[in-house]
Amino acid sequence: MEKLRIGLIGLGTVGTGVYKSLKDFDNIEIVKIAVKNINKPRSIEISQNILTDNPYEIVNDSSIDVVVELIGGVEPAWSYIKTAIENGKHIVTANKELLAKKGEELFNLSEKHNRVVLYEAAIAGGIPIIMPIKTILAGNKISKIQAILNGTTNYILTKMDTDGASYEDVLKEAQALGYAETDPTGDVEGFDAAYKITTLGTIAFNSRIKFENVYREGITKIRKEDMKNANELGYKIKLIATATIDENNNSDVRVHPMLVSKKNMLAHIDYVTNAVAMSGHPIGDIVLSGPGAGEFPTASSVIGDILAIAREWKTTDYLLPMMRCHHHKISNPININDTYNKYYLSITAPNAIGVIAKIGTTCANKNVSLANIMQKCATDKNVAEITVITEKCLEKDIKEVIAELDNCQINSLLRVM
Amino acid sequence: MEKLRIGLIGLGTVGTGVYKSLKDFDNIEIVKIAVKNINKPRSIEISQNILTDNPYEIVNDSSIDVVVELIGGVEPAWSYIKTAIENGKHIVTANKELLAKKGEELFNLSEKHNRVVLYEAAIAGGIPIIMPIKTILAGNKISKIQAILNGTTNYILTKMDTDGASYEDVLKEAQALGYAETDPTGDVEGFDAAYKITTLGTIAFNSRIKFENVYREGITKIRKEDMKNANELGYKIKLIATATIDENNNSDVRVHPMLVSKKNMLAHIDYVTNAVAMSGHPIGDIVLSGPGAGEFPTASSVIGDILAIAREWKTTDYLLPMMRCHHHKISNPININDTYNKYYLSITAPNAIGVIAKIGTTCANKNVSLANIMQKCATDKNVAEITVITEKCLEKDIKEVIAELDNCQINSLLRVM
Repeated sequence: MEKLRIGLIGLGTVGTGVYKSLKDFDNIEIVKIAVKNINKPRSIEISQNILTDNPYEIVNDSSIDVVVELIGGVEPAWSYIKTAIENGKHIVTANKELLAKKGEELFNLSEKHNRVVLYEAAIAGGIPIIMPIKTILAGNKISKIQAILNGTTNYILTKMDTDGASYEDVLKEAQALGYAETDPTGDVEGFDAAYKITTLGTIAFNSRIKFENVYREGITKIRKEDMKNANELGYKIKLIATATIDENNNSDVRVHPMLVSKKNMLAHIDYVTNAVAMSGHPIGDIVLSGPGAGEFPTASSVIGDILAIAREWKTTDYLLPMMRCHHHKISNPININDTYNKYYLSITAPNAIGVIAKIGTTCANKNVSLANIMQKCATDKNVAEITVITEKCLEKDIKEVIAELDNCQINSLLRVM
Repeated sequence: MEKLRIGLIGLGTVGTGVYKSLKDFDNIEIVKIAVKNINKPRSIEISQNILTDNPYEIVNDSSIDVVVELIGGVEPAWSYIKTAIENGKHIVTANKELLAKKGEELFNLSEKHNRVVLYEAAIAGGIPIIMPIKTILAGNKISKIQAILNGTTNYILTKMDTDGASYEDVLKEAQALGYAETDPTGDVEGFDAAYKITTLGTIAFNSRIKFENVYREGITKIRKEDMKNANELGYKIKLIATATIDENNNSDVRVHPMLVSKKNMLAHIDYVTNAVAMSGHPIGDIVLSGPGAGEFPTASSVIGDILAIAREWKTTDYLLPMMRCHHHKISNPININDTYNKYYLSITAPNAIGVIAKIGTTCANKNVSLANIMQKCATDKNVAEITVITEKCLEKDIKEVIAELDNCQINSLLRVM
């Protein structure tokens, strides 16, 4: 049997998981691995002969069929992948940032060279989502995605909720445990989730979403008081990546914290678990959940992609249409100010007398209906602590309400699912 | 473009959904539909020319490429499918009973004739599960499945829980709403879920499970008191289909009610929703949930299978290995008496004095450890109502405990997840 020859770029956590797991498959051979430092001690036994510190020895090696890229980031990964495709190699990657920022160029290039780029591991780690969308769900028109795509922020929000702790304290703990990086920006400001929803929306809607059009808010301003208020009202706070598309190819794609009703399954996705809820026709609503990161779950997806190529590379002279990613159509982004949402507002008002009336009137004047309003005794008798949940209204309008409530302190403005 | 020619057997709920949804695909043509009564009025406009009341006009029609069987049951479906495969047709089916009882013959026959049998719709309706197992999860060793695979029983148990109602009352309501059939046996006695876990276990474990070896208990004996007790202890009661396999190919496959901790996502799968939790290496734990039945969700899976064939039937001279179902290995069933489980026991004891001691001693003598014991005041002062949760112990042992507690009335014995 002719073996499928793999070149691996990157031997970190995921790369090591892939290496360990691929040893069980006798139709696949890892022939070369590019690492930063050949002499670094490693947790696995590996022949020095197959290590190189020059990735071009992989992407230019004519004996290699598939390049597996696991280093992340746009450059130098993009240069390696470009060369590899031009040299006739198929690509398996877990690089969500590259896909989000260079997806269009990447898939045009792979199409031109008749090669496939598979990336199950880039979105939601081990959860099977990309391949199902391309295959068994292919008969569906998917119109909405609501997902928890970042394990670090979900861990932080879960701990803030269960421990009643502040964002800062939980972040420190998460960093100590290795769940958050020293510079946590990519996770806590929503970049990571935004990369993923860019690509997930594109493949699900069959219409390209541009990363620069994805609205993004992180979790750093969530207060423990918001967690408490949300709980009392029957919600959890989660960092949600959403994408919707209408029949005229207008897309609304964003990452921001949301109050999620405890009746919704996403409210019960805790710690580092990820989940993707999708709505489409004819299928209706489905939810897929599982480990969003980690050595082995991510390796599962990388290996699934490699095996898909291994099954097909010799049976057809070109690989299957389902493995491709044609998105010549580009969706029209809707500005966040023109979207309709329910809102949660936490307000500290300077004087309790008449304040509810003022809030009510201001909202009514801007077409904002209130679903729920809760006033609590504050420690300081001269102020009132007020929590408001609105009905669905225009983002522009709620912003005008806030501008007009200039004698109040707006502690938080969050959207409600 | 040469169209893929489909013959449809059965035009009930799912068949109608498939017919409606397939009209959007210009590479697929439904050329003939077999129905019981050609002249029956229908909710869809359909040309009389393509209707027939003789399914053999489909399975013997040399112009048809794929037969979609949607009538259910072993016969006459099996005769139609057999003839169709012998005549060189690929099969798409939603027939869980046929797969469970004739799977081995069916896949041997399809292999002999180099034809594929796809059946995503037979297991968990719209949830993408079979194709993911065959493709993106193919690198995994799946060792455990815990699933809610029957919408009718999940609806009944959810309503019993939320309304505090009895099984009999909820069943009547479910029948009136069309969620349960006039003869509900197939659902409430667990046959439907047992058919599905037979096939799901087989494909996930890559080792055939025989339907006759699946242990099965229904939900008809669940009392509203059990629901209440379970809730107080932090559980929900669900009809769970489980399948596990060990490294020596010994399988433990069953369908029975279980107490499921509220911390487990399966406890939150309500009404007619289905869910499949799977554990494997390297992936870890994933949960897929969605609509388990219904016109459109089931049609989504049937269409996904048809599109998979449509993509490939002309690109290779034989269809892809991933679409096949080779299970020449047969797993060894473990008898339920030899399995280890946690148990919930509801006991009415004749005399309160010394009864806890008696239960404790009897359990201890049979190596059954107690995790939780709760005694409540009964209306009748001469009896004690006792609820017990055990640690994991041998089924044989708990049965001996029950036999020895001959002066007590055992109201319920349920397993705990």
